[in-house]
Amino acid sequence: MTILESIRGPHDLKALNGAQLGELAEDIRQFLIQAVARTGGHLGPNLGVVELSIALHRTFDSPADRILWDTGHQSYVHKLLTGRQDFSKLRGKGGLSGYPSREESAHDVIENSHASTVLGWADGIAKAHQVLGRSDHVVAVIGDGALTGGMAWEALNNIAAARDRPLIIVVNDNERSYAPTIGGLANHLATLRTTDGYERFLSWGKEVLQQTPVIGQPLYESLHGAKKGFKDAFAPQGMFEDLGLKYVGPIDGHDIAAVESALHRAKRFHGPVLVHCLTEKGRGYPPALLDEADRFHTVGAMDPLTCAPLAPAGEPSWTSVFGDEIAAIGAERPDVVVITAAMLHPVGLTKFAEAFPDRVWDVGIAEQHAAVSAAGLATGGLHPVVAVYATFLNRAFDQLLMDIALHRCGVTFVLDRAGVTGPDGASHNGMWDMSVLQVVPGLRIAAPRDVGELRAQLREAVDVDDAPTVIRFPKESVGEKVSAVGRIGSMDVLHRTEGPDVLLVAVGVLAPVCLKAADLLAGAGLRCTVVDPRWVKPVDEELPPLAARHRLVAVVEDNSRAGGVGSAVGQALRDAGVDVPLRTFGIPEQFLAHGKRAEVLADIGLTPVEIAGRISAALAAKEAATRTEESGE
Amino acid sequence: MTILESIRGPHDLKALNGAQLGELAEDIRQFLIQAVARTGGHLGPNLGVVELSIALHRTFDSPADRILWDTGHQSYVHKLLTGRQDFSKLRGKGGLSGYPSREESAHDVIENSHASTVLGWADGIAKAHQVLGRSDHVVAVIGDGALTGGMAWEALNNIAAARDRPLIIVVNDNERSYAPTIGGLANHLATLRTTDGYERFLSWGKEVLQQTPVIGQPLYESLHGAKKGFKDAFAPQGMFEDLGLKYVGPIDGHDIAAVESALHRAKRFHGPVLVHCLTEKGRGYPPALLDEADRFHTVGAMDPLTCAPLAPAGEPSWTSVFGDEIAAIGAERPDVVVITAAMLHPVGLTKFAEAFPDRVWDVGIAEQHAAVSAAGLATGGLHPVVAVYATFLNRAFDQLLMDIALHRCGVTFVLDRAGVTGPDGASHNGMWDMSVLQVVPGLRIAAPRDVGELRAQLREAVDVDDAPTVIRFPKESVGEKVSAVGRIGSMDVLHRTEGPDVLLVAVGVLAPVCLKAADLLAGAGLRCTVVDPRWVKPVDEELPPLAARHRLVAVVEDNSRAGGVGSAVGQALRDAGVDVPLRTFGIPEQFLAHGKRAEVLADIGLTPVEIAGRISAALAAKEAATRTEESGE
Repeated sequence: MTILESIRGPHDLKALNGAQLGELAEDIRQFLIQAVARTGGHLGPNLGVVELSIALHRTFDSPADRILWDTGHQSYVHKLLTGRQDFSKLRGKGGLSGYPSREESAHDVIENSHASTVLGWADGIAKAHQVLGRSDHVVAVIGDGALTGGMAWEALNNIAAARDRPLIIVVNDNERSYAPTIGGLANHLATLRTTDGYERFLSWGKEVLQQTPVIGQPLYESLHGAKKGFKDAFAPQGMFEDLGLKYVGPIDGHDIAAVESALHRAKRFHGPVLVHCLTEKGRGYPPALLDEADRFHTVGAMDPLTCAPLAPAGEPSWTSVFGDEIAAIGAERPDVVVITAAMLHPVGLTKFAEAFPDRVWDVGIAEQHAAVSAAGLATGGLHPVVAVYATFLNRAFDQLLMDIALHRCGVTFVLDRAGVTGPDGASHNGMWDMSVLQVVPGLRIAAPRDVGELRAQLREAVDVDDAPTVIRFPKESVGEKVSAVGRIGSMDVLHRTEGPDVLLVAVGVLAPVCLKAADLLAGAGLRCTVVDPRWVKPVDEELPPLAARHRLVAVVEDNSRAGGVGSAVGQALRDAGVDVPLRTFGIPEQFLAHGKRAEVLADIGLTPVEIAGRISAALAAKEAATRTEESGE
Repeated sequence: MTILESIRGPHDLKALNGAQLGELAEDIRQFLIQAVARTGGHLGPNLGVVELSIALHRTFDSPADRILWDTGHQSYVHKLLTGRQDFSKLRGKGGLSGYPSREESAHDVIENSHASTVLGWADGIAKAHQVLGRSDHVVAVIGDGALTGGMAWEALNNIAAARDRPLIIVVNDNERSYAPTIGGLANHLATLRTTDGYERFLSWGKEVLQQTPVIGQPLYESLHGAKKGFKDAFAPQGMFEDLGLKYVGPIDGHDIAAVESALHRAKRFHGPVLVHCLTEKGRGYPPALLDEADRFHTVGAMDPLTCAPLAPAGEPSWTSVFGDEIAAIGAERPDVVVITAAMLHPVGLTKFAEAFPDRVWDVGIAEQHAAVSAAGLATGGLHPVVAVYATFLNRAFDQLLMDIALHRCGVTFVLDRAGVTGPDGASHNGMWDMSVLQVVPGLRIAAPRDVGELRAQLREAVDVDDAPTVIRFPKESVGEKVSAVGRIGSMDVLHRTEGPDVLLVAVGVLAPVCLKAADLLAGAGLRCTVVDPRWVKPVDEELPPLAARHRLVAVVEDNSRAGGVGSAVGQALRDAGVDVPLRTFGIPEQFLAHGKRAEVLADIGLTPVEIAGRISAALAAKEAATRTEESGE
């Protein structure tokens, strides 16, 4: 039995000596490399927090003390130390979540997986403890990258204001999130990082304290309570102290004893304190350390030695097709500029950035700033393309509405990972965009059905200079080309028959699903027209008269049913006085558990069989009702 | 002719001498007090920026140089100096907007009126200038209160990173937004504010520079380039310098010459610079200066001498009823706590805060933090009530979805100023909430129709401990009680007849409008049922069978038609297989111009006559279509 295998919970950690802890850390690293290589998952971030996680669980008493992880993709070690060592189905249906999960463990608190939230959570929990008179500790672990997000600032401002409310912030500083952390803050952290004078002073202090245990704490307090000028002689305490936060650091985040010592100091302090830990993302796994593009942040299943992917290389991804096309557009249009929120590579902007380094901005994990600065760029005469994951656009809804749409700015949003994404679970599904964006006046939304359409619609989007546009596509390999057989208004007709019964409105990549459903319906004697609206907002004005020539309309979308394209079609039909029955297929109003995309789609009924079955049942019910009515019952 | 009357544009300012500038400032103050007292509007903020606005327009060449105002309620002086001196219909239909407006003037850029955006706009415009090789200046004016917003931080982090991109930030520091500015930042600004050593040093430097104009700039640069430690001997430059922003200040914001001098220095600096100006909100108007609750931030029409309101006191406001009820709840429930985003008084929390000071938190202009810290408070065992204006909730959509709803936290949001608000124009209408929130799993939304319902539903909401709830009400005096004549499921029946034709679903305060529409329809021989769903999300399961007993359903709501309650009702009917025709009445998909609430409602057809007319037309069209079908045409 390895030491890791002997750990059933945090309590088991406390009996280990230094050598055993070193062995445990090594066990964990080997486990992570092997396990994550088998299933895919977040590798780099977890290799970086092995010692930090051990030190946290030795110093605090979770779950009474609350250990909170920002974003949560670095919680694998925490899972291993809190009784979860079966990683065989990590991120798969029925397996462990890739993020903290309250269903899995009482040690987990936050499972949102959107960055920069942990300080706000910690502030709330600390306030609750204060109101309820609880003395349990609240510890928030946040990356330096996540500190660039506005939520982190709002929380710091509040936390620092309450000098008497204990709260421990651990900054896990690896100088990067997906990409190297940017901005004035990163420069400031670099200054702190390279200053070890204060740390040497503290080491000296520690020795003194060890020799005088009784007066240790008062002495420590008075040393630390010394005026800022005294401390500045050893290290620039900088902006954190300016705000009113006690600063401890920098600490070597791979030295368990050093981290524990700092955490114990923080624990004794009766106010907000920030512990600055320096860590190395991918620590102990040379391929991760050597990769500048940080492709080991998340990996697919791979050979841990060669790093060769286990699945054969398939079709290119939607992301890469977008990346190629936006680079081509950039060469033709010097006014086209691009913005990423700390995800240059994952959203496909690498090629554009290499070709046009002066026309790309990484704004940090700061979707609000991505959107509002895009409004400024458009007002200044350029056409910005903001590339983000669909789920993260929710962070910039107000800015898209008030700064971009109200000001009629020509800004293109490219939403990667739209619809059901799968293994990352509830918070990574991009299933809200086509609903919440329906309210935005003047906005246009495209859901391309294949990569030819992606290229074409991207070009249509960057030609719009007086309104925002949105292009959304999923996280998967591109499928086959789906040809149009005709055009009505701006809609592509994908399939048509004489004297049709059903109008199927196929949104984006669900076109093949709809075509198969139409085949099944044809087998049952029901004739279908299948259209791809291309631009799903606004609804094409030819749609209502087309709908009126059918007995039933069905809208199929990879998006929340609440307020989505189906709802918008319903509104358009009503406004045109067309009261043909409508049925809508999409994602039900619930948070979806993790699993493969195809599994999730099947679970929620977005399959040809389910769609065809429900459509024919609806038509049968209509017929039965009509017969009842006609027979006067 | 006064000096103010002689100003047709910024150019006219440049010829004035010091005495004339003083006279102009006095003219402007008298004008503002008289004009705003006549129409109502933002008074305090504008009285505070008289000299600052003059100095800005003398130093820069708007509109080539871009002078950008955060939030924009302090742009009245800017309007006066840029050719807009007819304030007779300020904020009224056809009159001047209460915020910058691109339709009014080329000098106006940002009209969103949501706080903390200006630095992002400025960053975008400065980047565009850099790409396009333009040397025009970009100047952003932001209040200290707005710096507490996360967007400001995200922007500062980006601005500070580009040492070679000129951008001037003017911090208009009056120590408050609606309420005194809170948090660590406020404490830090206070430190900077009370330090004049550096300013005295700069004054000395200025004299030297004036005597050596040729080498003035290099000398200035080298003085300012001196290492931080040297500057710290005179004043703590603090966090702005830590981030990489040049800091100039503090400056007396009411000394035109001093402000101009600082702005000229900033203008010569080839990078990002922050000018810290100290101003006094309400300057020159004793009633505003003496009022601690800052009720002169915005005023209604009043006598400028006695401050007595011109309109007779009417019914109490919805806000005050909420304020009374939440204070009563607070007395009964020690676990109920409240959160405001820098608007303690405007959202009605004064009474609660006086009674329970340890259970109220002002988080700054930080709606994201309001929501995420509420998730923490709920997880910690309390029931938070977050009171915000409806339009500002858009800032916290992701947090409501991911932090609160995903974690099934019992948090109550109270949305004041929901629906059409009127005089504040496009960005203050709370017309999005009942649409975008439809996607949030588990969320419940109440739209009380009268104050009795507000009290009852607020109590129902704070009893929900495993999901978020939302209560929304408008900005107006409360109306009369609207009695129920029955109950179906959880819906109140407000009116019913035998053998009804039309089911009218009346959302919230539009109940009286619907009852009047029902009267009009009765006059035309059409019998109506009128129900108030009370909780509009989720749709009551009794609604579809009730709808099926009518020939037409109409939903009337004070909210965007796109994806609103009407859409949700449509979805519920479809899911129940009920295909009775539906018509929805609400706010069209557009931004609304300013005017009185009643005027705007009439403009968009939310009146009994319009609703009844369109319902009877729809029924007539259905009958005509049925006759045509029956006759086999």
